[in-house]
Amino acid sequence: MRQVIKQLTEIVGKNKVLTAPEELFCYGYDATFRNFTPDVVVKPRDRNQVAAIVKLANEKGIPLYPRGAGTGLSGGSLPVRGGIVIVLTDMNRILEIDRENLLAVVQPGVVTAHLHQAAEKEGLFYPPDPASSDACTIGGNIAECAGGPRGFKYGVTRDYVMGLEIVSPTGEILHAGGKTVKNVSGYDLTRLLVGSEGTLGIITEATLRLIPRPRAVRTLMAVYDDLLKAGESVVKISTSGVIPATLEIMDRLTIQCVTRYSGCNLPQDAEAILIIEVDGMESAVAQEADIVARVCREAGAREVVAAQTPDEREMIWRARKAISAALVQIKPTKISEDATVPRSKVPEIIIKLQGIRDKYGINLVIFGHAGDGNLHPNIIADENDPEEMQRVEAAIEEIFQAAVSLGGTLSGEHGIGILKAPFMHLEFGPHELDFMRRIKDALDPKGILNPGKIFQERKV
Amino acid sequence: MRQVIKQLTEIVGKNKVLTAPEELFCYGYDATFRNFTPDVVVKPRDRNQVAAIVKLANEKGIPLYPRGAGTGLSGGSLPVRGGIVIVLTDMNRILEIDRENLLAVVQPGVVTAHLHQAAEKEGLFYPPDPASSDACTIGGNIAECAGGPRGFKYGVTRDYVMGLEIVSPTGEILHAGGKTVKNVSGYDLTRLLVGSEGTLGIITEATLRLIPRPRAVRTLMAVYDDLLKAGESVVKISTSGVIPATLEIMDRLTIQCVTRYSGCNLPQDAEAILIIEVDGMESAVAQEADIVARVCREAGAREVVAAQTPDEREMIWRARKAISAALVQIKPTKISEDATVPRSKVPEIIIKLQGIRDKYGINLVIFGHAGDGNLHPNIIADENDPEEMQRVEAAIEEIFQAAVSLGGTLSGEHGIGILKAPFMHLEFGPHELDFMRRIKDALDPKGILNPGKIFQERKV
Repeated sequence: MRQVIKQLTEIVGKNKVLTAPEELFCYGYDATFRNFTPDVVVKPRDRNQVAAIVKLANEKGIPLYPRGAGTGLSGGSLPVRGGIVIVLTDMNRILEIDRENLLAVVQPGVVTAHLHQAAEKEGLFYPPDPASSDACTIGGNIAECAGGPRGFKYGVTRDYVMGLEIVSPTGEILHAGGKTVKNVSGYDLTRLLVGSEGTLGIITEATLRLIPRPRAVRTLMAVYDDLLKAGESVVKISTSGVIPATLEIMDRLTIQCVTRYSGCNLPQDAEAILIIEVDGMESAVAQEADIVARVCREAGAREVVAAQTPDEREMIWRARKAISAALVQIKPTKISEDATVPRSKVPEIIIKLQGIRDKYGINLVIFGHAGDGNLHPNIIADENDPEEMQRVEAAIEEIFQAAVSLGGTLSGEHGIGILKAPFMHLEFGPHELDFMRRIKDALDPKGILNPGKIFQERKV
Repeated sequence: MRQVIKQLTEIVGKNKVLTAPEELFCYGYDATFRNFTPDVVVKPRDRNQVAAIVKLANEKGIPLYPRGAGTGLSGGSLPVRGGIVIVLTDMNRILEIDRENLLAVVQPGVVTAHLHQAAEKEGLFYPPDPASSDACTIGGNIAECAGGPRGFKYGVTRDYVMGLEIVSPTGEILHAGGKTVKNVSGYDLTRLLVGSEGTLGIITEATLRLIPRPRAVRTLMAVYDDLLKAGESVVKISTSGVIPATLEIMDRLTIQCVTRYSGCNLPQDAEAILIIEVDGMESAVAQEADIVARVCREAGAREVVAAQTPDEREMIWRARKAISAALVQIKPTKISEDATVPRSKVPEIIIKLQGIRDKYGINLVIFGHAGDGNLHPNIIADENDPEEMQRVEAAIEEIFQAAVSLGGTLSGEHGIGILKAPFMHLEFGPHELDFMRRIKDALDPKGILNPGKIFQERKV
């Protein structure tokens, strides 16, 4: 390893290679509760340095883990087998905002919120908006195919990646896609890379689609005395002809935690609220907001209130974004799941989640992107309590089973990483897993790029 | 081969195996001007029959070509090496239109227009709309990632495929994606398969996203005395904040041919027209149509007329869809290209196409999806005139070079097939091609599935 560190230093310079234990510690965790220690951390500044590092890792057979801001929720960036963590945060320039072609060209280390701001300055809009957008980076968003609250109307990160420059697992610089909205030349390497969790290539540049910023937005809060009725409203809104920009749900415990923590003024006696936004032309959003409000009332909302000022809207979203921080006030270990079901199954998954909560006697709260069928059942526990953690683990497996049995998926937007790898067999049969494995093995013959993710370790 | 035919008969029954020369002839062409003769044609009725056929082809090492309606424009379904053509048109059922989840589940042989109609009956909308939609099938649309005029606002087939059932090149039935709008479990096999031109799997079922049918539409025709000004209008509309549902261009020769052929009333003295549609809520489309009309006038349109009745709208679209049939009235061989550039480069590619037309003295017309940078330069020639065809071939290569040099791509929506395979090196370097090849070789070790497509034949 000493020899490797010397060679890495030659590639990126001395101050971009970290080896002190306290530095290694900083790059061995993410937003899950797991951590591992790498042998060395390296911070390249351009594509050529990335390529040279990957070639070196191949030559020496050393595992390599691409990493952005470390906000992942499935362990996708964790150095599970030691080796080299390659941190892309120094490659953080927005290279281009192109108004005519409605796109941005960015480096992987750009913080998502910075892209939002840069786009808005030009009257444009980048819809993907993971809750960690103030910290997370575009490279990580692409690698995990991040989502957020705007999936229902606008889709997820996948739908905004037009082109990528990557360094392949063998150290070659490749280009996929580009600046055209239509492109069918060869295999769609762009979309294969999106969501591949850093196992098929390291993203060194991305061309991202932007759209004109919606001219107007209306924000509604529908308040329910019955969580299930909130779930049923989601289904009814889908068939109303209106596609809201966001359609979020919070259950009672979430509302109470977040109110206590953030001081935001939410109805604390409610069993659930839905936060619904419609956006577009001013005249259309007024009409759409009326339809949505009517549908919610008919489906059993006790009241539907509209944000009257930008401040009121901001308060609602501040509450939504404060959930994660609020929940860890109960207990320190927060396990955030993102098992996702077809939208019509939202009421059923709510009933199943309540059953699982009661069966295992755990702190389980429900919030998330109800319009996408993408609830975030969060379990709040204490990892130092082994008896509780055992119940938590059994509950998690049951949540996955419930989602898959309803035609859903293990992960809507967090990725498989290491946390869900043991459950892939619930969603996929051996042939599907073999198909994926063959792709991985063909492109990364030495298996050095982000090992241990998506697939369970093979017994050798 | 006699043994193979016997085994195929055992799988699908006697009347679903075709071997007579006149039958083989019918399945050896597509909408290009090339044709080849297969050894046998087989028409399976379900996934298990497809799987059995693929396993047989593997066992015997016989090439296998999936085929829908044969409307392809790049030769993607042609049996270039003989072998088995597997026709999916008997698997033509719409299995489900799901209003709550806004999706359809269909078999591959469903005609695209039939899906349009079924969705509209439920107040829903399937935006992809290739010009051949009355004949082409969804399986072929997915395999080639078909586009059409609605790409600017609504995207292409890729953006509507949520899940696929496929038979792998080795004969296993696999499932990818599903009914959730968010899904990041494992590699995105769904999008890898879309546009893979039948080389990585045979689609046996697809789950397609639908959206609510737009409540209102406005159709405008902007008339220009200068083709370039029409091109410049495209760029200016992009920066106006309005995203039209369609933004089509026709040059003078196209207008004249189509008027003569279809009797539609287009302005024959114009150098170009743009057909622009905006859709959405009634109040919003009125506002958007006003913005677009103003932008076109400012950019030099001599007039902008709005369709006043459904009949007037229908006439404009009838003219647009009649182009291909109209053009072959000039000469019999029509080579339809779809080289695509970033939207801002539409004026430049128009200038280059005019230069190429003049340099080679060919009949080159320009029309297509200008809003997507996806023009269709069509060359009208006579394949029995070898001298002319030589000029045509030189012109085609130059069109590809022009598109790629402007940051564009060989194919926006027709696929690479056999016609563009010799030009892949213009767009991709050896590392990109190797990356794609490795995927193909890993998934189809015997190379039996749709050989000769996308990649040029390797010298053995």
